[in-house]
Amino acid sequence: MTADPVRPRVRLSAEDRRGQLIGIGLRLLVVRPIHELSIDEVAAEAGISRGLLFHYFPTKRDYYVAVVRAAGQRLLKHARLPDEGGPERRVRAVVEGFVGFVRRRRANYVALVRAGAGGDDLVLEVFENIRATLADRVLEALGESDPDPMVRLAVRGWLAMVEETAIEARDEVVSTDGLVDFLVDGLGRLLAPLARR
Amino acid sequence: MTADPVRPRVRLSAEDRRGQLIGIGLRLLVVRPIHELSIDEVAAEAGISRGLLFHYFPTKRDYYVAVVRAAGQRLLKHARLPDEGGPERRVRAVVEGFVGFVRRRRANYVALVRAGAGGDDLVLEVFENIRATLADRVLEALGESDPDPMVRLAVRGWLAMVEETAIEARDEVVSTDGLVDFLVDGLGRLLAPLARR
Repeated sequence: MTADPVRPRVRLSAEDRRGQLIGIGLRLLVVRPIHELSIDEVAAEAGISRGLLFHYFPTKRDYYVAVVRAAGQRLLKHARLPDEGGPERRVRAVVEGFVGFVRRRRANYVALVRAGAGGDDLVLEVFENIRATLADRVLEALGESDPDPMVRLAVRGWLAMVEETAIEARDEVVSTDGLVDFLVDGLGRLLAPLARR
Repeated sequence: MTADPVRPRVRLSAEDRRGQLIGIGLRLLVVRPIHELSIDEVAAEAGISRGLLFHYFPTKRDYYVAVVRAAGQRLLKHARLPDEGGPERRVRAVVEGFVGFVRRRRANYVALVRAGAGGDDLVLEVFENIRATLADRVLEALGESDPDPMVRLAVRGWLAMVEETAIEARDEVVSTDGLVDFLVDGLGRLLAPLARR
């Protein structure tokens, strides 16, 4: 492997290089579905050879899974559960983070969800982990440390509603604040009959 | 193309042959994701040549889309809106049909949703049509002939919850009846604050 005479290869640490390659993947995801990501294009953007990319990610699939996982980590970072506050305020923070993240990067998020649903078991596992983590945060905010399975199911169902409405809501229909209000209020309404069982 | 000496080819009308091939696809979907369906396997099961299959469906994609569309039609047939009854009873009939259908064929349904989300625009369109039809039925049952966009968005979000809980609910957590009760009651609760706006 010889250095490119025009664009000199920058020496990065292994960790920085991996981060750079994943960042390129996240950017490219905005414009095309993940299964159409081209390894050659990613390598070219990074100014490295295809062979070197495969040094960091042994297979194309390893690379894709790393990109999806990184996107999931970003989402979870935005939808953080605050340490303090009442149940409603803490749930609201998670929903606000989730809805805001999805609305700001709708195309990217939809591409990722499609990829996740495309049948790759490892990618599906990443998505399942993200959804389970979000459900855990909401349940923790509600003080449900050992929830009834029906309560957990209801929260999972409600999270699907959060995701769907965040993707579908147009700015002229409802603001992010208005949608978050509706969703947080809706969770309380949905769970009320279960609490009385 | 010579006839198979062991398994004589049965002569079917074009319509019956298409129906037979789609039926085989629907059955095979239970055991594998749609993008792994093998055209050769489908042709062999039908007792026809690969060439003849392509006579009915010019490309593999045409065949897949036909299978997904047929599955969608089946679902919509199960989730029919009855002509009579009050709003709650009519919504309940749609939800019962949807949830019952998904729970009886969970693996098949999940395989289809994954396929639908796999990035093929034609398949995504089929799914979008199914969801829009279900939302229209629910809105019609509620007497919302010209719904506020926020009400439509809420119904779409609630349908995502219906789908998620139908897929995730285990029999030991909640019966189909119990889940349908929760969902129909939940729709009323979610829409209540919007009606008061």
